[in-house]
Amino acid sequence: MLPLVGAAGKSFVRADGTRRFPHRRSGRQAWPMIAEEALAQFAAAQVVVPVEVQEMCLVGLSDSLGVGVGGLAAESAVITRSLLAEADSGGTHVWASSQRLPPRDAAWLLGVSSHALDFDDYMHPMHGHASSVVLPAAWAAGEPRGASGEELLQAYAVGYQVDWLASQAFGTAHYERGWHATSTVGVIGATAAAGRMLGLDAGQMRTAMAIAASSASGLRVNFGTHVKAMHAGNAARSAVVACELAMAGATAAADWMTGPHGMLAVMGGRVVPAEAGAAISGVLDTWGIVGPTGLMLKPYPCCGSSHAAVDSALAARADLGGAPIDRVAVHVDPLVTGILRHERPATPDEARYSLHYPIAVALLDGELTARQFSRERMSAPDVADMLRRVTVIADRSNAAHEAFAAEVEVVSGGRTVAVEVPVALGHPRRPLSTDQRRAKFVGAAAGVLGEPRAVALWDSVPRLPSLDRISDWTELVAP
Amino acid sequence: MLPLVGAAGKSFVRADGTRRFPHRRSGRQAWPMIAEEALAQFAAAQVVVPVEVQEMCLVGLSDSLGVGVGGLAAESAVITRSLLAEADSGGTHVWASSQRLPPRDAAWLLGVSSHALDFDDYMHPMHGHASSVVLPAAWAAGEPRGASGEELLQAYAVGYQVDWLASQAFGTAHYERGWHATSTVGVIGATAAAGRMLGLDAGQMRTAMAIAASSASGLRVNFGTHVKAMHAGNAARSAVVACELAMAGATAAADWMTGPHGMLAVMGGRVVPAEAGAAISGVLDTWGIVGPTGLMLKPYPCCGSSHAAVDSALAARADLGGAPIDRVAVHVDPLVTGILRHERPATPDEARYSLHYPIAVALLDGELTARQFSRERMSAPDVADMLRRVTVIADRSNAAHEAFAAEVEVVSGGRTVAVEVPVALGHPRRPLSTDQRRAKFVGAAAGVLGEPRAVALWDSVPRLPSLDRISDWTELVAP
Repeated sequence: MLPLVGAAGKSFVRADGTRRFPHRRSGRQAWPMIAEEALAQFAAAQVVVPVEVQEMCLVGLSDSLGVGVGGLAAESAVITRSLLAEADSGGTHVWASSQRLPPRDAAWLLGVSSHALDFDDYMHPMHGHASSVVLPAAWAAGEPRGASGEELLQAYAVGYQVDWLASQAFGTAHYERGWHATSTVGVIGATAAAGRMLGLDAGQMRTAMAIAASSASGLRVNFGTHVKAMHAGNAARSAVVACELAMAGATAAADWMTGPHGMLAVMGGRVVPAEAGAAISGVLDTWGIVGPTGLMLKPYPCCGSSHAAVDSALAARADLGGAPIDRVAVHVDPLVTGILRHERPATPDEARYSLHYPIAVALLDGELTARQFSRERMSAPDVADMLRRVTVIADRSNAAHEAFAAEVEVVSGGRTVAVEVPVALGHPRRPLSTDQRRAKFVGAAAGVLGEPRAVALWDSVPRLPSLDRISDWTELVAP
Repeated sequence: MLPLVGAAGKSFVRADGTRRFPHRRSGRQAWPMIAEEALAQFAAAQVVVPVEVQEMCLVGLSDSLGVGVGGLAAESAVITRSLLAEADSGGTHVWASSQRLPPRDAAWLLGVSSHALDFDDYMHPMHGHASSVVLPAAWAAGEPRGASGEELLQAYAVGYQVDWLASQAFGTAHYERGWHATSTVGVIGATAAAGRMLGLDAGQMRTAMAIAASSASGLRVNFGTHVKAMHAGNAARSAVVACELAMAGATAAADWMTGPHGMLAVMGGRVVPAEAGAAISGVLDTWGIVGPTGLMLKPYPCCGSSHAAVDSALAARADLGGAPIDRVAVHVDPLVTGILRHERPATPDEARYSLHYPIAVALLDGELTARQFSRERMSAPDVADMLRRVTVIADRSNAAHEAFAAEVEVVSGGRTVAVEVPVALGHPRRPLSTDQRRAKFVGAAAGVLGEPRAVALWDSVPRLPSLDRISDWTELVAP
């Protein structure tokens, strides 16, 4: 039971803890509020966060911290860090380090590291990774200002929810067009989260979101390269900048999302811009993170669209009990093969955007962890040999892609083992157990901290929401 | 005659000084080089810049410096500057100041200030302002490294040309979709310019452009707000960052422009992605800046699409000789009214994206300078009165929009004076005279420096290309 129930603001919170949104009235008719105003008012209001939402937020937040710490050793984060200079004074701590960076730079680096292993949580309606943008933005903006654990958890809840709400308007079409929604949609929620940490009111929130929308970017063509993780870093940084500019008095367009040259019209969405307000208003009483399209924690450090196929391969391997494998057929839907375009990956980032590679190495090793995405493991002869035995067939219905359904057929001697997985492990309908989450966290963070400190970090996470200052948590685990 | 003829690189430069591009050969057939490779090879090569191109580049560069210095006093630049901290050591000088900023921050601020008055040069095929992104990126990256004036001018020439080449692929559709091309297309040329200053080879250039493409952003919905100028700053900063990341070893997609989820497919262009290489290859022997769609210097500090209408209004006013005005009708094409949506602007930035306002105030004052875009002048009663007399009619052919053709009819007593201007002053077909350029420069820069120092700055610009270090120029005019 986290002490997170905030002060009820205005007419915003009902006595039973649910939220009520004001409607814009035009003459005698009540209209749903326009999308921009709904998002800004929600982001700035002292909403009551139900206990089950708080708990799910802590699950997402702790998972993000583990993979974000581990990601600091990934190439994309190491390269980004090499560009950044220590803060003169104050600044935000880099996780698990005594280094301090100016808040904007801290958001940048922590965004990159949170997404660098492609191990961060996934949100289906967004088709992206909200936490790796929302959490770094909130943390970087809040830590040097003495933010508490409760404030962090509430900012995370609000930022994640804003991304979930905005995703109702963007839908699948935005991602399919080629945008990396983690960054483009993500920056809006991240702005909400950073804005709460900086105390923005609803007007400033709306301006900050409009500024952030004009920084939204990230092309899917760069999947499989360092740039993919850098998208998350750019968005986290841009969110902090947008809030700082709004606080400094910058002006921006009120109709940034639904206007004639607003984000939906320019960058594409499921609904026509005029319907965006309705799409968002229709779900304002739902907390997305606890729903069937909410938080998905990834068990494997690679693109989520491969996860059901990896589950299938690991199950088939267990069934075969170590017998040598002749050939493997993987059946997925075409959206998956469109994303995972590296059949013979040459770098860890390409391997994370391959379907052939994780299947091959999972069949060989019986696991799929950060170790399998090292350059050493990638260059082993047995992997090259197994890659030649894997065939991918895009013959599943695109309609099944929500859970990335897959089937794997493994032929060993005269025997064929076929395993179909309709819903990947980690999906809201098949959540990771606490033990699985702990193993994931420790495995990821140990790559940077070593196992004893990674365990200590995991053990410290439940205390985070009750800390007076989140900087105390950082100091707890700094070297 | 600037000492700008560089060493001829590889098979790139013909003896007569024109450029020759290698072609990718596939079997027996010669194909145009793919777009990404053409841009990267051009950006990295030691091209010979013809003398008339050098001269036009110095015209563009000097104009940019004047409006960029003047723009430091604009609200959007003042707000941006308030976020930035002095560089520890080294760093790039802010123009006309002893302040030094880290190069990324200097690119950011100088990009904002260069575009803040909406007084910077315009390039038609880009539908945007190349110099305000290209020059700050080159300057910020090069100054602390001791770059010479010759290097600066060559980087500017190359960066401007890369934007012009890229614009062949993006065409009008990209801008019409709602993108602010100054930023989205501009960042590619700015990356070329900064990359030259940092010594990137062709491979690094290609990577840097791919990184930059994934930062391309800027929605037209924010026109008329501080964010419009901030787009240019973001792009200039992103260009420097992209080069730094490429130098630090970051990977990015080779097919960033023409790939299935590359910039053209995702953000829209005139041609289908596969044709982009041909569109660019077709004009590789043309320097855009000296052509009919090249450098347009704006005589008025507001959106270029209002310029022909302002010319008409000023001519009609001269004809009327001070007689009181009853009413005014302005005929333009629909693209113009789509851009200039602020009929009753409330801020200087809205006034720059108004057609009614500049017409009204030009008719009253007989000039259109920075003074007319002050909050003081905007709030005067005579302006409010004249605004009520102006009617805008979108009845011209869209085909005429290249030069923003316009007609103004002014009714005074029983008399109607009608003036049609098919090509705005400042267009390549109607260039500003040296006196006009000087008056513009001094007028803009004097707002920050005062007139004597602004004059000294103008007088110093011709010496810039022969300076051993461009930092000497900065010190020449620092307080």
